[in-house]
Amino acid sequence: MTTQLAAESPDVLGVPAAQRRSAELEGLIAADPARFRVLTGDRPTGRLHLGHYFGTLQNRVRLQNLGVEMLVVIADYQVLTDRDVADGVGHHVEELALDYLAVGLDPRRATIFAHSAVPALNQLLLPFLSLISVAELGRNPTVKDEIAHSRSSSVSGLMFTYPAHQAADILFCRANLVPVGQDQLPHLEVTRTIARRFNNRYCDGGAPLFPEPEGLLSAAPLLLGTDGTKMSKSRGNGVALADSADETARLLRGAKTDAQRHITYDPATRPEVSSLVMLAALCLGRDPHTLAEEIGDRGAAGLKAVVTEAVNEFLAPVRARRAQLAEDRGHVRRILRDGNERANAVADATLDEVRAAMAGLR
Amino acid sequence: MTTQLAAESPDVLGVPAAQRRSAELEGLIAADPARFRVLTGDRPTGRLHLGHYFGTLQNRVRLQNLGVEMLVVIADYQVLTDRDVADGVGHHVEELALDYLAVGLDPRRATIFAHSAVPALNQLLLPFLSLISVAELGRNPTVKDEIAHSRSSSVSGLMFTYPAHQAADILFCRANLVPVGQDQLPHLEVTRTIARRFNNRYCDGGAPLFPEPEGLLSAAPLLLGTDGTKMSKSRGNGVALADSADETARLLRGAKTDAQRHITYDPATRPEVSSLVMLAALCLGRDPHTLAEEIGDRGAAGLKAVVTEAVNEFLAPVRARRAQLAEDRGHVRRILRDGNERANAVADATLDEVRAAMAGLR
Repeated sequence: MTTQLAAESPDVLGVPAAQRRSAELEGLIAADPARFRVLTGDRPTGRLHLGHYFGTLQNRVRLQNLGVEMLVVIADYQVLTDRDVADGVGHHVEELALDYLAVGLDPRRATIFAHSAVPALNQLLLPFLSLISVAELGRNPTVKDEIAHSRSSSVSGLMFTYPAHQAADILFCRANLVPVGQDQLPHLEVTRTIARRFNNRYCDGGAPLFPEPEGLLSAAPLLLGTDGTKMSKSRGNGVALADSADETARLLRGAKTDAQRHITYDPATRPEVSSLVMLAALCLGRDPHTLAEEIGDRGAAGLKAVVTEAVNEFLAPVRARRAQLAEDRGHVRRILRDGNERANAVADATLDEVRAAMAGLR
Repeated sequence: MTTQLAAESPDVLGVPAAQRRSAELEGLIAADPARFRVLTGDRPTGRLHLGHYFGTLQNRVRLQNLGVEMLVVIADYQVLTDRDVADGVGHHVEELALDYLAVGLDPRRATIFAHSAVPALNQLLLPFLSLISVAELGRNPTVKDEIAHSRSSSVSGLMFTYPAHQAADILFCRANLVPVGQDQLPHLEVTRTIARRFNNRYCDGGAPLFPEPEGLLSAAPLLLGTDGTKMSKSRGNGVALADSADETARLLRGAKTDAQRHITYDPATRPEVSSLVMLAALCLGRDPHTLAEEIGDRGAAGLKAVVTEAVNEFLAPVRARRAQLAEDRGHVRRILRDGNERANAVADATLDEVRAAMAGLR
């Protein structure tokens, strides 16, 4: 039994095991997508960029189109607490929904909802916090880093309890699959622990109430911002899905390159140039090495021309759809309202079962 | 300004200052009761006994009758998480409400509600947790004790974050007064800190959204259980308000006394006998010393006869009212439903203001 659990528990064996398990999961998804329910989402802190697209959005649309049920949380409530004053979060929620719809998330198949609109979700925090110890919460790498680099007085109760909040986000809809990056595996392990302990403590003899969600590692390409640093919403160093073709051209024209004229694809020694090559390759569905060879002596200017055209062509249908959707704000709001309603129905049903289980009535 | 704050902050100066401030507060309540809103409550873990009555219930009814607005939370949701299986919590909620009504809490003046029925209350946890550090949560004496006596792995995330939950319980209705025992002063200080930080961070230039609630220390008499240990719901060593006169007589007949025949009032050296004397004195509105002198050589049997008669006579009207109320369960449920509705309206209004303030819209 222990061996069985270990084999299915990626975080015990580390990243290579998680990668193997993810490959297995892809096979299971292809064979029977209806077995899976995915929870994923974003913080509404600004417009999504191509790093988001190739890192997560594309994967979500792929899973949706394979037939996997998907719930997408817009984590608006946490954002409010993270910034001293979070201006215009409501606006950001709608913009994020527009980005989702523009890239192909289908509101008939994916439930897009705002965290703040689903009160029953946070009701799960009390029981979940009771199922995890302070020592376990303190093992969270983000918290450990923060304490190591500053002092525990700078770690807020919210940051410290973040893995329990994430467990509520995931388990409220009993998702069994969560697309993650490697750095998120420890957080997901807390969700799995909480699910297991809840089932053990409160579902004695009956069917488990919660699944132990598995992480689906996706191979996100490393795309740098135009200034050579991490692509980031706040730095404005990434091509936003909603940017115009002209804005895109201007941003890419100013992108950092290097002193070598001949273009090659070599991420280790030429990170900025290689990131631009990769971006063009992703948009064109090409191999970055051969694309770099083709550009060759056309240099940085040639590279920028290629990447600009590739990006603008790639994003043209997304942007056209987004512009059309943006004309009818009422439509977007209805989609969010419907998503909120569905998420609430799911959350209320789960909370009812949770309370019944805890009161020994299940 | 600092001096001013210190003078008004009982927990900075310790218990003597809190006692002085409580005496001042009594004066302010008498002069203008409408200035105050009290939050108080209990965990629905069983029937209330005379320790509760003379410790807190009597004081609540007194404050209510002075004209102070009162909200009484039945903390059902936390109870569910604290016990492995919390059987019959729903039943306990109704029994608790019956006890409240029987002792004189008036649902037209006091809002009696169940924690689990007010989802907006828990919505405050996210911002509140963001306003308090892990270091500050760790200073909670209960948590420090638990860590000292066992290990941090035995402290749950729920226990660790308890002061933030309590802040939500108190601040959701913007209560500015909380009847407390001395041991609860540090918890209340966290609530005050959260209120102050929220106002500083989000109400810049405007009126503060939250009051900094003050503790009203009440002089609870020390009443032991009939076995000489702390009176406790679970030990069955206290006279429950709902007990019959016969059950009361039986319980008190078995009460622990001591080997000295002559009855005196001397809590330090004769705790069990003195506790019985005090109980009778409280019920009769008499001084315990003179009452003990009167009983004198009648010994333990005489003391038990006096205390039994005093308790049963004192509780007779409470029990009669309780029995009458218990005949109409629908009535009690309506009172709880009304209370829940009122608490929800208050909580929703506060949450709306909290969110507007956090989004910079206030």
